[in-house]
Amino acid sequence: MADTTYEYLGMGKAEIDTPVLLVELEVLEANIARMARHFRESGKYLRPHTKSHKTPAIALKQLEAGAIGITCAKLGEAEAMADAGIQDILMANEVIGAKKITRLMALARRCDIMVAVDNPQNLAQLEEAAGKAGVKPRILLEINIGHNRCGVAAGSAAAVELAKAAAACRHLRYCGMMGYEGHVVDLEDKTARDGGARECLQRLVDTRAAVEGAGLPVEICSASGTGDYYLATTYAGITEVQAGSYALMDVAYGKLGLGFDHALTVLTTVISRPSPERVITDAGLKSLTPEHGLPVVKGHPELECHALSEEHGRLRTLQGSSELQVGELLEFIPGHGCTTINLHDQLYAMRAGKLEAIWPVAGRGKVR
Amino acid sequence: MADTTYEYLGMGKAEIDTPVLLVELEVLEANIARMARHFRESGKYLRPHTKSHKTPAIALKQLEAGAIGITCAKLGEAEAMADAGIQDILMANEVIGAKKITRLMALARRCDIMVAVDNPQNLAQLEEAAGKAGVKPRILLEINIGHNRCGVAAGSAAAVELAKAAAACRHLRYCGMMGYEGHVVDLEDKTARDGGARECLQRLVDTRAAVEGAGLPVEICSASGTGDYYLATTYAGITEVQAGSYALMDVAYGKLGLGFDHALTVLTTVISRPSPERVITDAGLKSLTPEHGLPVVKGHPELECHALSEEHGRLRTLQGSSELQVGELLEFIPGHGCTTINLHDQLYAMRAGKLEAIWPVAGRGKVR
Repeated sequence: MADTTYEYLGMGKAEIDTPVLLVELEVLEANIARMARHFRESGKYLRPHTKSHKTPAIALKQLEAGAIGITCAKLGEAEAMADAGIQDILMANEVIGAKKITRLMALARRCDIMVAVDNPQNLAQLEEAAGKAGVKPRILLEINIGHNRCGVAAGSAAAVELAKAAAACRHLRYCGMMGYEGHVVDLEDKTARDGGARECLQRLVDTRAAVEGAGLPVEICSASGTGDYYLATTYAGITEVQAGSYALMDVAYGKLGLGFDHALTVLTTVISRPSPERVITDAGLKSLTPEHGLPVVKGHPELECHALSEEHGRLRTLQGSSELQVGELLEFIPGHGCTTINLHDQLYAMRAGKLEAIWPVAGRGKVR
Repeated sequence: MADTTYEYLGMGKAEIDTPVLLVELEVLEANIARMARHFRESGKYLRPHTKSHKTPAIALKQLEAGAIGITCAKLGEAEAMADAGIQDILMANEVIGAKKITRLMALARRCDIMVAVDNPQNLAQLEEAAGKAGVKPRILLEINIGHNRCGVAAGSAAAVELAKAAAACRHLRYCGMMGYEGHVVDLEDKTARDGGARECLQRLVDTRAAVEGAGLPVEICSASGTGDYYLATTYAGITEVQAGSYALMDVAYGKLGLGFDHALTVLTTVISRPSPERVITDAGLKSLTPEHGLPVVKGHPELECHALSEEHGRLRTLQGSSELQVGELLEFIPGHGCTTINLHDQLYAMRAGKLEAIWPVAGRGKVR
């Protein structure tokens, strides 16, 4: 279908085979505009994370609205974005091993790549590879600001030493640092989320001060996501934000009351009505992910998704019986947008109820 | 990479970029042989479910070992299997809507498709479409034997009526019935699993008796999965079994002590060592699914995967520190094989530690 999309354009939902990912363009564009406005007003930069949508067409809309560049979680995503002509890309993860470093240097020839580093051996390998390739990629130190995943410890002597080593590299452009408070960014309790985020962001700006105190500049200091972007932009020491999920949203982020609407759904067909209270649809675990909670049925508050099988969504009425017939369409708002999109090869972009484009989820499926 | 596989053949694991799905062919073939032996000895038929591997190359090995045909969960899978020349396919799910029914009839032209039905309107639509298309697909009633998903109620008058209606169709070949005890098939407690399965299987054979009592033959009576196949083959009224996960296995099925070994892993690279006790790898929720439990690190009982981020596996030592270096390889045994494979486009088939083939997961990603 990817090769023969034009004949489908203009179709309504009833003509689209299911299960399939839909994006409502009016909502997507309003979300992008809302976030862009915040960054214009705050004077900070937005570098949206594209790991969520993995879709160059959406990244281009974010850039057009004012984003300074994009963020990627893996090389396959960055390659897909570079293929679409995007120039300013942060690969916000360590690039490990000779194969991946070769790919990174190839990327550095066709875009202005910036890559995270958290250990001196990897830094040395990147320096050597960049020298051989004749490229000069940018480097950000990854700082562990509390998430306890990758990253050199915030405020540590090791962080200052790594900054010195990076700044001394002839074939790498040392630019500063990044951190990610991933363990608090989606907390539903705003007091806990904001309090946790402030602790982490303070660790990042303290590390910035320590690095600057050692005589090293910090041009870029990057952090945060959709759940706490509004805090990061209040810190003088933070220059840019990596929020990405705001564009499409999902049930989990929807609970945070951030002002962004749901642009993403999975279109599904009712395939069985085993009883008046039960509705079975054709979207299950292979079309929707459950780890942040089950999907919500858009526009049907009387229905609850209580379980997902591999290829079935299992709904029940909250009270009374349902009039839905076999063959009718429903839309699920995914519990977790990022991993749900990763299940699909295409996004069906709808405007005013008609199919405007079928976008390849170009960043999925590639080896990291 | 799918287009240029030959240059990679013969590679060892150290030369393969990660994260990637590996299948150990010796183990796969032993699992297939073990299950085939059970069916030869029991005199029943195995029709393995291919929803787990979605890979024609594996289905062909199962058929070669004696399977009577295959089972699919969605049309996209059945189409991929028919593309590989497989003739006898059970589409063990309702096919709903004009688009899908058209696809089903196209399939009926090139293989001997058999499809599940649980309501008379759908049956009538299939009959009409088959008549127009000039094909004669086979029909199985789907019976709800306790799983409470799709299916007409076991033992109900509606089941007998649906059998009569199916047998009366001129363009459909009514063949019998199927049920699936999906809510008990993976219970770790063998007493609970066997007891629950027996209740369900009894409902199926009772329904068979009721349909036969109304003068309708039941040539095919299909049920069960990897967790309880050994029970289904003891029932005189059950003719075939749909088990599929036995071929590759996963952590959840491994806990059942069924005698099948783990053929499937996700090869991953250590990308960060933030502390002596913590190991971060490059396979996360976009390479492995968590809904049946977190993955296990093969050959490293001292390591525990305690969390998956989208692109990171987070491991910790159970005691002491780890000597693993950044860049070293590990293998995860997936918690749930079926949904993990659905994340990947290719399976790397290894024999004696060398890459023998790269198999496309041809059944994934297609609209249902």
